[in-house]
Amino acid sequence: MSSIIGNKLKISLFGESHGEATGIVIDGLPPGVELNLEYIDEHMKKRSPGQSVLSTPRIEKDKYDIVSGYFQGKTTGTPLCALIRNENIKPGDYSEIKSKIRPGHGDYTGFVKYKGFNDYRGGGHFSGRLTAPLTFAGAIAMQILQSKNIHIVSRIKSIKDITDDIEINLQENEIDRLSKMNFPVLSPDKLSLMQEKITEAKENNNSVGGIIETYIVNVPAGYGEPFFDSVESKLSHMMFSIPAVKGIEFGAGFNITTLAGCNANDEFIITENKVMTKTNNNGGILGGITNGMPIVFRSAIKPTSSIGISQRTVDLHEMKETEINVTGRHDPCIVPRVIPVINGASALVILDLILERDGELWI
Amino acid sequence: MSSIIGNKLKISLFGESHGEATGIVIDGLPPGVELNLEYIDEHMKKRSPGQSVLSTPRIEKDKYDIVSGYFQGKTTGTPLCALIRNENIKPGDYSEIKSKIRPGHGDYTGFVKYKGFNDYRGGGHFSGRLTAPLTFAGAIAMQILQSKNIHIVSRIKSIKDITDDIEINLQENEIDRLSKMNFPVLSPDKLSLMQEKITEAKENNNSVGGIIETYIVNVPAGYGEPFFDSVESKLSHMMFSIPAVKGIEFGAGFNITTLAGCNANDEFIITENKVMTKTNNNGGILGGITNGMPIVFRSAIKPTSSIGISQRTVDLHEMKETEINVTGRHDPCIVPRVIPVINGASALVILDLILERDGELWI
Amino acid sequence: MSSIIGNKLKISLFGESHGEATGIVIDGLPPGVELNLEYIDEHMKKRSPGQSVLSTPRIEKDKYDIVSGYFQGKTTGTPLCALIRNENIKPGDYSEIKSKIRPGHGDYTGFVKYKGFNDYRGGGHFSGRLTAPLTFAGAIAMQILQSKNIHIVSRIKSIKDITDDIEINLQENEIDRLSKMNFPVLSPDKLSLMQEKITEAKENNNSVGGIIETYIVNVPAGYGEPFFDSVESKLSHMMFSIPAVKGIEFGAGFNITTLAGCNANDEFIITENKVMTKTNNNGGILGGITNGMPIVFRSAIKPTSSIGISQRTVDLHEMKETEINVTGRHDPCIVPRVIPVINGASALVILDLILERDGELWI
Amino acid sequence: MSSIIGNKLKISLFGESHGEATGIVIDGLPPGVELNLEYIDEHMKKRSPGQSVLSTPRIEKDKYDIVSGYFQGKTTGTPLCALIRNENIKPGDYSEIKSKIRPGHGDYTGFVKYKGFNDYRGGGHFSGRLTAPLTFAGAIAMQILQSKNIHIVSRIKSIKDITDDIEINLQENEIDRLSKMNFPVLSPDKLSLMQEKITEAKENNNSVGGIIETYIVNVPAGYGEPFFDSVESKLSHMMFSIPAVKGIEFGAGFNITTLAGCNANDEFIITENKVMTKTNNNGGILGGITNGMPIVFRSAIKPTSSIGISQRTVDLHEMKETEINVTGRHDPCIVPRVIPVINGASALVILDLILERDGELWI
Repeated sequence: MSSIIGNKLKISLFGESHGEATGIVIDGLPPGVELNLEYIDEHMKKRSPGQSVLSTPRIEKDKYDIVSGYFQGKTTGTPLCALIRNENIKPGDYSEIKSKIRPGHGDYTGFVKYKGFNDYRGGGHFSGRLTAPLTFAGAIAMQILQSKNIHIVSRIKSIKDITDDIEINLQENEIDRLSKMNFPVLSPDKLSLMQEKITEAKENNNSVGGIIETYIVNVPAGYGEPFFDSVESKLSHMMFSIPAVKGIEFGAGFNITTLAGCNANDEFIITENKVMTKTNNNGGILGGITNGMPIVFRSAIKPTSSIGISQRTVDLHEMKETEINVTGRHDPCIVPRVIPVINGASALVILDLILERDGELWI
Repeated sequence: MSSIIGNKLKISLFGESHGEATGIVIDGLPPGVELNLEYIDEHMKKRSPGQSVLSTPRIEKDKYDIVSGYFQGKTTGTPLCALIRNENIKPGDYSEIKSKIRPGHGDYTGFVKYKGFNDYRGGGHFSGRLTAPLTFAGAIAMQILQSKNIHIVSRIKSIKDITDDIEINLQENEIDRLSKMNFPVLSPDKLSLMQEKITEAKENNNSVGGIIETYIVNVPAGYGEPFFDSVESKLSHMMFSIPAVKGIEFGAGFNITTLAGCNANDEFIITENKVMTKTNNNGGILGGITNGMPIVFRSAIKPTSSIGISQRTVDLHEMKETEINVTGRHDPCIVPRVIPVINGASALVILDLILERDGELWI
Repeated sequence: MSSIIGNKLKISLFGESHGEATGIVIDGLPPGVELNLEYIDEHMKKRSPGQSVLSTPRIEKDKYDIVSGYFQGKTTGTPLCALIRNENIKPGDYSEIKSKIRPGHGDYTGFVKYKGFNDYRGGGHFSGRLTAPLTFAGAIAMQILQSKNIHIVSRIKSIKDITDDIEINLQENEIDRLSKMNFPVLSPDKLSLMQEKITEAKENNNSVGGIIETYIVNVPAGYGEPFFDSVESKLSHMMFSIPAVKGIEFGAGFNITTLAGCNANDEFIITENKVMTKTNNNGGILGGITNGMPIVFRSAIKPTSSIGISQRTVDLHEMKETEINVTGRHDPCIVPRVIPVINGASALVILDLILERDGELWI
Repeated sequence: MSSIIGNKLKISLFGESHGEATGIVIDGLPPGVELNLEYIDEHMKKRSPGQSVLSTPRIEKDKYDIVSGYFQGKTTGTPLCALIRNENIKPGDYSEIKSKIRPGHGDYTGFVKYKGFNDYRGGGHFSGRLTAPLTFAGAIAMQILQSKNIHIVSRIKSIKDITDDIEINLQENEIDRLSKMNFPVLSPDKLSLMQEKITEAKENNNSVGGIIETYIVNVPAGYGEPFFDSVESKLSHMMFSIPAVKGIEFGAGFNITTLAGCNANDEFIITENKVMTKTNNNGGILGGITNGMPIVFRSAIKPTSSIGISQRTVDLHEMKETEINVTGRHDPCIVPRVIPVINGASALVILDLILERDGELWI
């Protein structure tokens, strides 16, 4: 797979942070989908930097250019390629990393894998900028799913040690409200505390991470596979492709290990003539297959690796230990910007699952 | 993918719990590998039931029969198929579930996905028995990796609310010692407490789960991909194929979200002329690619779903709510038996990564 | 792919000629298909040896044993594995080839690829016996397609230099008649001449080949892809997996190169309110996609490589030139036995194309 | 696969004839390859129109723009995307085909598959223009193979009924000479006759096709797979992705069916301490795997479908029969322009086979 993922809906991702462009080819989109460009723009804007005092002041407009697969305002069904030209590039900011590898980044592993030929500027192909075209593709998938009443929404569950324990109410207006927030936290108090943590980190040239909780609602029962394409397998495969994700858990997740079997099991009930479960400790997935309950998962986002604090590292050319201080305009916390990436990436997985089982007639 | 996984080393899994057999086809094995059948047997025995008073008294010998790809004691390089005949089957034990779906199991989702045609006896294709052929394949992969000094070992990090906080010492003799334990816990005190929890659950016809921590040592830097085949993506895809896994985290995992960036980042150092990291919060993976440090991950194993306690459920035929009490000989805790499955499945992923990058000349 | 092929309907092939068994795993079959075992047997019998004085007197019953994915007479939707045990094996017949490579066979390339570890007995994994499980899987696909009125039939177009130029009449009764023939030739005169050629070859310990023409009727327009999964690409990929196939052509095939454009193009007409073409020089495929006309292709089958005539070859152990005379009970012509393999393999490709586009709801 | 092909070296093709651009993403290229842009240009020029009085007078410069995966003159190892902007587009030329489907083209099947939403201008995604980015990717693969002494060369075997029977002499200078010819025919007499046929077709607003014979030399023995990834399977899969190809045969091809087994088999000999075959009727492939002899195959190229002669067709909007006369500047014969496409596409297949078996260390 490498830079390509998907069975029926396939995406092929390319580009470097400071190269000419990043982009994506989406293969397997149903023909005749009228793209809602406003919706896509809005979705991508949430990922783009410079949206808030809490994020990097770098401004990247992430203007995409659809170069194929789109005709008279609609998808053609043939591969849709979109490019995002890189603007506002300051190569000087990153020149130091040619030989000094940044802790927490892919500089070292990229150097080894690509034998020193990778574009090291701004992290090159490893850059978070690659999530821009991914978010573009994800927005299209979200739009298609929404037309079938399948909605994806995420909330910030925690920032550093501040956790929001309010339970989400998966009504349509609540989903809508959260979808519109740039910093979707349910508890207003916790929201303030979280933002304080970020501001504090920013002032200290440090960074913080957090946990994102994602809900996918109205996926019918019966999608997924018992083994190697379990819904958890496919979602986790995709989520761990997003830089900074270091953990994923479904339903009660790691906490389910502390429950007794009688409490962990989700009892079945009948509601409005439909089989449902009383609880949702399994996060909408049983035996690898959707059971009709909301799919729920949490992703652990590590603190931004680029920090303005001196750290020990290695100079690969001189092969000796040294210090590094990653200057530049970095996000003290990327959690809010990761949300549209996770939502969109989830949509790509779910749409692939549906197209794979139900075929092109589904749309 | 569905029942097939892998890029260069592919496995194809089949079978049902109470059908004629379960089995696996392994394609892409290097030719000329002399299989250590004793090692494979030992490894499979750890997964098989009836090994301890703490597990189910059912005895399945898991005797495998290699029907292809194996000639004069060595792999031929052509697809190796192994079958495990099902013996000791008591269909009567499970007849109730034809219409009464067991909470926590794949009965309901299997019924929906396969339109009621799936073999419902003993969970059919969803059964944990399918992990027997997977463990067989995994043992072969482990043997091959060991010949290259790559070792995989797991320990029980927690059972229910009992957590073992002792840090592992990744020396060869310690890896060896843990590999030989049926219930690999570092702290003897915690081991007793954990086993008490399991005994208690057994007496109450209840069940418990836990967390398994896995280490893969001596994988060189440079394996994996920046995006869709990140090492985390591939390992998590595989792990979530194993029944009962509900979460996975790498390195510091969810905990990394509570650290400040300066503490989360693993600083680079030079040790014996090799680039290493001082800490290993990223679990041996940076930018989706191995960095030469041990790969570390934890898997959350939910409590066994089959319990002898009455639970609410639905009778799908009569489409009404009812009660179920899953009789039969069940494990009060499957955590120890999952360890060889996770180790073997990890080996399949790592061997695939290596064969994919280095080709068949690697061996 | 290697020993696995298919996107939505995947097959995984394994086994060796003189090993314990050959077999196949079919993943992605729709659930609830009542297998017509009589039909499968009849179909497999056409491929099995010993059916006629014109083929090898070896008798292999090709009795299959379905070990998974089949419950109460129907497919379950989970992977269906079938084994064909090898009986009537005389290892002595082939011992010479351990070092003496047979011209026209895969002995030498297998030796190189598998570094001498391949099972050389009877050609091992390269044996035509591997087409038995493939034919089994194909019979299931054919049965499913027939239930949707899609029929696949082949005829012998030529044996050596004897060509049957009678045009086929694709009416249902003609398809039926051809399907029942073991040696399906339209012209009775040519049939005799062809059989004479085979008898002559047999008497001379020599062999002959021929051309098989295959028709797939009633596939609706719109299946396939403009580029890398063109219907021609998928069919040819599969056909060249069948031992002895050395060429494939669609519609007018190589002959289309001798026509002027105005004669090569298939003009469009309307018949019974349906778009059709007047001629079918493109063999039912335009731009890689089915156009609703019969899919027509011809496969070139080389003469059986095993002949009882002395040939020059190399002894790999002594690394010197020598002579070989392949004793044993060989077919003087495998063309008739290849027909069920080609028909079944075509069915697997077409069913995969349909399931991929239309999903599981198609059935 | 659809618009993506390859196992280790993957290409993803996109674009429409009259859209903004066509392009390709190449994933899996080894890092550090210094691209020979002059060589690529020269190779692409052979495919581009307007090179001769025998081809279309349309001039497309096929200027490519590498937007990723290329840094400081070398491949980075991350996905390389190249775009070819469409210039010189005259939409007016093609407006008629919005509803009138052109015989021999993908207009009708594209309409059905994409439900009328495909970009119909100039054939859209079905256009031969898509072979420009494919040729670009192929040139890179050819350059890499050449650095390992693997060469690919094609010659025109026939145009319409004129066949060149001179045998090729696979010496390096002959390969070189043929590689430089725009119309590579061995016999000067036949060359003239072939060009006369093309001129005649041009004058009559008609078209002609032909047969291309391709040689791949110095591929070592041992690449490929016994079944579903046989070298013939992979090469034919790719060749049938190229518009206008209707047949492919390896070695003696269809002619091998007229030989007796004793003449068809390639006897083994030892030459310079290497196992070789006396003849090459199997075209360098035995049992699906390369045997070290030159890989030889022939592709049947149908006459250009666009002709300036009136043909019957259907107007899909009015759903009635009508006439069409495809105006515009068309090639009377595309055979010479297909050669660089076939050479390049072959190189992509061979490089994929090599990278898959030998890994990234091969380069």
